This record gives sequence, C-alpha cells and structure tokens, in this order.
Amino acid sequence: MEYLKPFAVDLDLVRGVLENPATRIVRRASSMRGHYADAEALERIIAAGDPVHYEVAEQPVPESPGQLRFGISTTLAGTVGEECFMTKGHYHAVADTAEIYLGLRGEGYMLMKTPEGECVWEKFVPGRLIYVPSFWGHRSVNTGSEPLVSFYVYPGNAGHNYGDIEKEGFPVRIFKRGGKIEFIRSRRQQHG
Amino acid sequence: MEYLKPFAVDLDLVRGVLENPATRIVRRASSMRGHYADAEALERIIAAGDPVHYEVAEQPVPESPGQLRFGISTTLAGTVGEECFMTKGHYHAVADTAEIYLGLRGEGYMLMKTPEGECVWEKFVPGRLIYVPSFWGHRSVNTGSEPLVSFYVYPGNAGHNYGDIEKEGFPVRIFKRGGKIEFIRSRRQQHG
Repeated sequence: MEYLKPFAVDLDLVRGVLENPATRIVRRASSMRGHYADAEALERIIAAGDPVHYEVAEQPVPESPGQLRFGISTTLAGTVGEECFMTKGHYHAVADTAEIYLGLRGEGYMLMKTPEGECVWEKFVPGRLIYVPSFWGHRSVNTGSEPLVSFYVYPGNAGHNYGDIEKEGFPVRIFKRGGKIEFIRSRRQQHG
Repeated sequence: MEYLKPFAVDLDLVRGVLENPATRIVRRASSMRGHYADAEALERIIAAGDPVHYEVAEQPVPESPGQLRFGISTTLAGTVGEECFMTKGHYHAVADTAEIYLGLRGEGYMLMKTPEGECVWEKFVPGRLIYVPSFWGHRSVNTGSEPLVSFYVYPGNAGHNYGDIEKEGFPVRIFKRGGKIEFIRSRRQQHG
C-alpha cells in the first residue's frame, strides 16, 4: 500500500503567515461584486486600482474525506461605503462538513448562516477558535484596522459552494459608523 | 433540520492552554508501562509519586465524519532512564483519517510509523505544523526541558487505536544522552 508521506510546514503564529505556501488565492475588490450593499462604493475602489481584498494561502492535500485541508486566510482592513471588508463566504460542497478557524491576528467576526436563514456570529481575536459546524455558511468580516488573519482546517472532501451564498446573501451586514460596529439586518433578506 | 450550533473557545497560543476545556485526559507514569525500554526506571518514577506524564484537554464535538475534534496535548519534560518522555501513541480506529498537530510550546519530535514498520519523524517547534496522513501511527516525544504543547485537529469519526501500538511498539526510540538527542532503532523491532 502506498501511503501519503508525513510533512511539515512553518507558520508564524504572531504575524499569521504560512511560509512558502504551495498555492495562494488572491481575491481583489473586483471579485466582490454583488456582495456589498453599496455597489457604487465598490466600483470606486475597483476603479482606483482594484486592490487585494483577501487572500488564502494553502498547502494542498488530497481531497478525500479522511484528509484535512488547512491554510491561512487574510482579510484586509477597510470599508466599502461603511460596510466592513469581508470574504465572499461559502457553504461546503459536501454540506455535512465542519470547519475550524483559529484567530491569529486582527479582529472581526465570523458570520454564520443556515440555509434557512438563521444567522449568528462569533468574535475573531487572536487565540479564539471558532467552530463552524456542518451546514453553516460562513464569512469572515474584518472590523479592525489591521489584517484579520486566521488559521483554518476542514475535511479534505468538503469543497466550496460559493454559488448559494451569492444568491442568498447573508441576513446580516456589519458596518463601521463613526468608529462603532453595527450589525444590520440586510434588506435582501427582509424583503426576500 | 436541527443543526449543531456554532461555538468558540479561547486558546492561549503562547502558553499553549485551552481555557476551560470540557474534558481533560491525564496520563500518569503508571499508564506508560510497556512503552519504555527501561521498565525498572519507569517503576522507580511510579514509586516516587506517579507524576503526570502527559495530558490532553479537549472540547468534544460529535464523533461523525464531517466534524472536527480538536484540543491541546501537553507532554511533560523528562526521561525514563535516558529515554525521552512521550505519549502512548496511537493509530486511528478509522485508519484512513489524518491528523494535524501545530506546535505551540517546547520542542520534540512527532514519531510516525506505518503498520508495515516504516518510521519517520518531524521536529516539533512552536509554529511548526506537522501533517500526519491517514494510516500513520504517531507519538509525541518531548526532547526539551519544558512541556511540549501542541494544538491538534482530527476528523470526528477517527477514534483511537492504542492496542496495535502497544503490541508493535515504535521502530525508533529517542534518548537524551549527555545532553545530545539520539535516535535508536529499538530491539523489539530489530528482533521481531
């Protein structure tokens, strides 16, 4: 029998860096169309240089159920209008799979929703482990002034389902107004 | 449908502590009979107070394939004779499941073996992530002078198989002799 070989990689747990990742996914502002309440504010950010919005550094392993995929997620600080920078958010393609996030740097929230629209959040701070159970869509939101960085682990076969989140949106949006963080129920969910 | 609720727990990533764990498994020296080369040296340690050898703090989640179990493993520093303190070591009961260990404090090695007797190791230092693939038995060995602490994650259905390691042992033992770390092929494997 041919076994996968053990390996090791180095993380800087203070800066929140995976050293020499095999893959790096970079999402620029232009990949976030449709996600923010203020579409015009997003277009201004795109026109002004389309900066990096968030990125994911990953060390791939086989996408089988018993393996564990892991990496580092970094969401930059800022707002689109007054709405805090965030990731697209996703369910897992194999919906009955959980994910663990461990905050390493910065602060924010993990927004989580069920397909039926229940929405909860947990605070992201360094050292805080957030358990996203099976079936919950999830999105990181940076409410601070430095990058929000977390280490994540999920089952190898989980995959990503971005499409349903793009259609549904999240029931709650997070804004920074006059330095205060506000959780606002989104119109799309209220009227839909 | 009834979903498991999201939750969060706090880790001290510098000291390597899971705050208020739901369960804590404590292994004393007396639970390590049969694992060290020098059985008499172990009996002297047991007779002298049977101190804690290693412990595991865990926040349980359901033992289903898509969930992720996690916790903190702490192996104390010391030697039995000249052999470095270590954990019992285990395969997973569901053998085709991986495990991730992230070094938080102290130093040592993760010893890993296949059922056929191939044996490799990776160095444990803070920030080093060790990927133990499916099918590899694994044991933490503390070669330093402070507790060896790691954060671990494994699939919810993995379970533990200690029995096969108890029967087989590991092909390699780690000793500290005159301050130097030595990897020695064990007699049990050479003669067996």
